[in-house]
Amino acid sequence: MKVKDTPENTLERLIIYLKVLEALEKKKIDFISSEDLAKNCGVNSAQLRKDLSFVGSLGTKGVGYSVKSLKFSLKNFLGRAQEWNLILGGLSPLGIFLLQDKILQKEGFYFLAAFDTKEENIGKIYNGIIVYNLNQLPQVVNVIKVDIGVITAEENPEIFLEAFINQGIKAILNLSKVPLFVENQEIKIENFSFSMPLTKLSYFLKNSL
Amino acid sequence: MKVKDTPENTLERLIIYLKVLEALEKKKIDFISSEDLAKNCGVNSAQLRKDLSFVGSLGTKGVGYSVKSLKFSLKNFLGRAQEWNLILGGLSPLGIFLLQDKILQKEGFYFLAAFDTKEENIGKIYNGIIVYNLNQLPQVVNVIKVDIGVITAEENPEIFLEAFINQGIKAILNLSKVPLFVENQEIKIENFSFSMPLTKLSYFLKNSL
Repeated sequence: MKVKDTPENTLERLIIYLKVLEALEKKKIDFISSEDLAKNCGVNSAQLRKDLSFVGSLGTKGVGYSVKSLKFSLKNFLGRAQEWNLILGGLSPLGIFLLQDKILQKEGFYFLAAFDTKEENIGKIYNGIIVYNLNQLPQVVNVIKVDIGVITAEENPEIFLEAFINQGIKAILNLSKVPLFVENQEIKIENFSFSMPLTKLSYFLKNSL
Repeated sequence: MKVKDTPENTLERLIIYLKVLEALEKKKIDFISSEDLAKNCGVNSAQLRKDLSFVGSLGTKGVGYSVKSLKFSLKNFLGRAQEWNLILGGLSPLGIFLLQDKILQKEGFYFLAAFDTKEENIGKIYNGIIVYNLNQLPQVVNVIKVDIGVITAEENPEIFLEAFINQGIKAILNLSKVPLFVENQEIKIENFSFSMPLTKLSYFLKNSL
């Protein structure tokens, strides 16, 4: 596995560079110097060049970076040049929001099915996506290729984690309140909730007032 | 400023510990060994103890940690023992979702007002929260104390950033697609979008398949 090669912090910055490049492309900017790109990305240019060396992308002296081609290299490096199939676990308000909103679809992440454990939710359809009973997961996984399981359950998120892992899903985005971990190195869980960045801010405010 | 004392990675883990402790408290667990707590938090117990030394919380030999009191210490350390006032900038679907959902309120983060630039949105009310014109921000800030500005604009998020900073708001959660940065060290911006953790997963999948 090559995954360990790129340090986590570098990976996070590379994702930011990609987002900034997408914004620059929208503004019809074709070329950018490494100094200007670094400034837009909140780093210094030495850091930017060091990070981009992981991707193997080097700017041209005097011209800088081609926005389009650097964006392409980054997308490819980050696995974003292809589309990914998602399923959702737990029909919370956040879950319903994600099914209805096309925000993730635009970035290449497609929800194909949703799962819940409450009888009253089974059979509902959001944005064309059917809500199945969690115990139907094996049948659904038999028919469609699932890349990423997104957990949005408000209660007992671990039930969905277990079911997803049992069906061989190796990448999990956990948006529930409870952080989840597994010891199996072949499974990757990303834990996120809005209170994470907000708590970083509350810590900052408490200590800077 | 003391803010620099705690490394970013430690801070992130402390926030995870807090969430795990809140979940344990809900399950009516009073005491937990550092080994078990570490396991629940996805770290080893040496790491846990090292991180908790920043908070000044030490478990009792043979008893472990009191869930309630460690939770209390962490909340206090992280600035989560108090409530914070938020305003929202940009009435996107995500913005409306956050105004309507009480998910943040339960964690002590209260939206008091929302701002937009589109005339048709001004005066709308979500969950009791009024949408003002962005140019009314100075008057609103005169009346209420704003701690954190949350940017959910789909277009031109930098307009909201500039307006928020001009009104002396020092903590910004940017949920727009475009990462934003400022050089002023007295202002803290947290950039987040769902595609950040999803891209970490796509990178993992691409390299482990």
